[in-house]
Amino acid sequence: MPDSQRMFANADGSRHLLGLQGMHPTRIEPFLDLAESYVLLNRQRKTQRDLLRGRTLINLFFEDSTRTRTSFELAGKRLGADVINMTVSTSSVNKGETLLDTAATLNAMRTDLLVVRHAQSGAPALLAQKVEASVINAGDGTHEHPTQALLDALTIRRRCGSLAGLVVAICGDVAHSRVARSNIHLLTAMGSRVRVIGPPTLIPAEIERLGVEVFHDMDQGLDGVDVIMMLRLQRERMTGGLVPSAREYFRFFGLDAARLARAKPGALVMHPGPMNRGVEIDSQVADHPEQSVIQEQVEMGVAVRMAVLDRLSRGQDRTDR
Amino acid sequence: MPDSQRMFANADGSRHLLGLQGMHPTRIEPFLDLAESYVLLNRQRKTQRDLLRGRTLINLFFEDSTRTRTSFELAGKRLGADVINMTVSTSSVNKGETLLDTAATLNAMRTDLLVVRHAQSGAPALLAQKVEASVINAGDGTHEHPTQALLDALTIRRRCGSLAGLVVAICGDVAHSRVARSNIHLLTAMGSRVRVIGPPTLIPAEIERLGVEVFHDMDQGLDGVDVIMMLRLQRERMTGGLVPSAREYFRFFGLDAARLARAKPGALVMHPGPMNRGVEIDSQVADHPEQSVIQEQVEMGVAVRMAVLDRLSRGQDRTDR
Amino acid sequence: MPDSQRMFANADGSRHLLGLQGMHPTRIEPFLDLAESYVLLNRQRKTQRDLLRGRTLINLFFEDSTRTRTSFELAGKRLGADVINMTVSTSSVNKGETLLDTAATLNAMRTDLLVVRHAQSGAPALLAQKVEASVINAGDGTHEHPTQALLDALTIRRRCGSLAGLVVAICGDVAHSRVARSNIHLLTAMGSRVRVIGPPTLIPAEIERLGVEVFHDMDQGLDGVDVIMMLRLQRERMTGGLVPSAREYFRFFGLDAARLARAKPGALVMHPGPMNRGVEIDSQVADHPEQSVIQEQVEMGVAVRMAVLDRLSRGQDRTDR
Repeated sequence: MPDSQRMFANADGSRHLLGLQGMHPTRIEPFLDLAESYVLLNRQRKTQRDLLRGRTLINLFFEDSTRTRTSFELAGKRLGADVINMTVSTSSVNKGETLLDTAATLNAMRTDLLVVRHAQSGAPALLAQKVEASVINAGDGTHEHPTQALLDALTIRRRCGSLAGLVVAICGDVAHSRVARSNIHLLTAMGSRVRVIGPPTLIPAEIERLGVEVFHDMDQGLDGVDVIMMLRLQRERMTGGLVPSAREYFRFFGLDAARLARAKPGALVMHPGPMNRGVEIDSQVADHPEQSVIQEQVEMGVAVRMAVLDRLSRGQDRTDR
Repeated sequence: MPDSQRMFANADGSRHLLGLQGMHPTRIEPFLDLAESYVLLNRQRKTQRDLLRGRTLINLFFEDSTRTRTSFELAGKRLGADVINMTVSTSSVNKGETLLDTAATLNAMRTDLLVVRHAQSGAPALLAQKVEASVINAGDGTHEHPTQALLDALTIRRRCGSLAGLVVAICGDVAHSRVARSNIHLLTAMGSRVRVIGPPTLIPAEIERLGVEVFHDMDQGLDGVDVIMMLRLQRERMTGGLVPSAREYFRFFGLDAARLARAKPGALVMHPGPMNRGVEIDSQVADHPEQSVIQEQVEMGVAVRMAVLDRLSRGQDRTDR
Repeated sequence: MPDSQRMFANADGSRHLLGLQGMHPTRIEPFLDLAESYVLLNRQRKTQRDLLRGRTLINLFFEDSTRTRTSFELAGKRLGADVINMTVSTSSVNKGETLLDTAATLNAMRTDLLVVRHAQSGAPALLAQKVEASVINAGDGTHEHPTQALLDALTIRRRCGSLAGLVVAICGDVAHSRVARSNIHLLTAMGSRVRVIGPPTLIPAEIERLGVEVFHDMDQGLDGVDVIMMLRLQRERMTGGLVPSAREYFRFFGLDAARLARAKPGALVMHPGPMNRGVEIDSQVADHPEQSVIQEQVEMGVAVRMAVLDRLSRGQDRTDR
């Protein structure tokens, strides 16, 4: 494997969670199974503080994200870890070097679990090569956001029983979405059939290689699907010329009740949040009492992150430590 | 009650603390009595971590306020809660929708206690309609700041024995002050006589309806009062044309030793902080060894917030949960 | 002692740690000895939470510093303290007054340990006069940064056995460096011989009075030294005209392998971080497997801060409380 690829890889048996590409279902399922038990624990408003007592979890966020950071912070605290937030501006120069120095600093501080979000694809993998901590990728550039895909999978599995055989449509700005990439890897591994839907400017070339079907027409793409995953449209895309306007975008690629009706009756509506209501999704659909599982996704997020922290810290998942 | 009013109401028996308007003394006093016990606990440098162990308290601040956030954070930690700070920029658009999505997120994360500060009046009440957590208003627009009024009341009660029959002057920018409004509601309910003093531009029209007496002359207004509450003059007021200049303002509405002498001997001097020394208050008065209780207010703040978290979380105060 | 000096002094037996100037070796060594035990504790990934349980540690940072703040936060949490971060912008006016009001607030909140970083020399000492908490200076202006010098001393002592008799070169922007000043005070007290090396614009006049030798030539200054402490070159120095350019600076005062060879074989290379690689230090030297102890410095930082919090909170070091 060339070095450039290794940076993005998440070899089986790794003590890190850097991405889901190439991960076998037998490694994915234990995360989901364990997360189930944490859903129960959280609903009973119980905690399990002995699990990570004395361990140090650092939330190293080079991009600000209140939701994801809070979700990991809650997960860590409910398992008893010492949680430290480090929000770092990347406005400084020499980023590459600084990242390695940051890794050395984190080692010297005896960090056990390191949650990293970074604007550059591969940054968590680079850190993982240098730190003694278990690294969890909380989103890197346009690469991966594995805990998001795991929480999405858990949400679907709880509703549909299994991922195998389902048809899942991922809609919107697939080209810039790490959420889309992680979901494609996980869903195809678990036996779902994945469609991506969006304007040609927002669908990456040759994405079919990942085993997905491409649609540029929303009505066609949604035809008969079991699950609709909407992606957030970053405002930069609109000002950057890739999308004509929010109004135009919604007209062609927004999800409203009429479009939802194209999917299988009872199809699930998902969104990683925060939503741009009226841009990629209509409020009526976002708040659909039976079909929208958007709030459930947030709940599964905390449970999945507890499961990930649990497994990685237990050492059950470590071979190179 | 029309819906627009309900948003700002704090019905008796609520599991939330959104405001003090219309709150009966029999609901106010238990907060003060319980806070007394926390004053003692804090002075003994003890904690009571079992009380909120396993509960999640989120400090959701849409306006930054280091003092108030720290006071709630301390209160929560001393009672054993997991405290998570979420400071959210409101520069983004579609605030109304985002607030409801935020509520959904907080529910999904199993938040037990939600402390909210927001630039818009009514935002905490809106959240309270949507979240399962107990909501504590930490200041919303020009509406209310109930824990500030409770801590002020506790400070006065400890010094004067009772609030009934006292004459209290609230001085300065009453029009824009949520501190003033919460204090007016609480003090009049507890039997104090309240005067408001300030330039006509900073006193709201028809404020007499709340049962207060209006003065535009500081010397007259302070005549014989038991308690002087100074308000912070926001610098925007000076640049906004409502006040000619800091110097002029101080000359007519600042509190110095000469003006303090107009009040009853030994009258209390209060300020919610942070002070603009030389603008609304002279340092000699602010630091008066017997009459200034400004530092005591901060101490009472932590105790009152512990009492509020305690009562709301105990469920003793909940009818609609 | 005149008042202006007292502000910067750290009298023996103080309950604070404001600076190292004039501190006797018999007061320095206990910090280092205690820190040794915390190095061990951290390496075993153990904690000692009973020590500061129920105590409140406030990190009051008027200048942002992720590394130092994190190091104190870790230290406090591993000893069981409630740690609260207060990052305060100093863009507001009336700083002096605000600082005293801040002190009053911290007292009212029952702060036990106060870690302060401030752009103005003497600010922690001013706070120490007003607060009941033990104050730890985490860097004030160009004055002192005592925990940095303690961690540097611990790093050297562990490698060299003792500080006495060693020749230590401090290189770079000595004029603006609180790290340099604290190190000069500590090292000379412990019997090291200290050289300072830098361009005349960055070496303060009359620094020889502190008992150091001045060199403006890097090769001469490094000749035969046991330890090389590089200082970070703030970018402001380059734009401010004190240094011609990063390239020029590195040519005359940067540390590379050739220059390192002038020092004693096996001489230690130190840097307080974060490094400007290629400006004051070459990567080959910074990452030298045997001679660079830069990562060790970070590790010692957490241990030293645990020792400082421990000693100051135990009251073993307090005479005026």
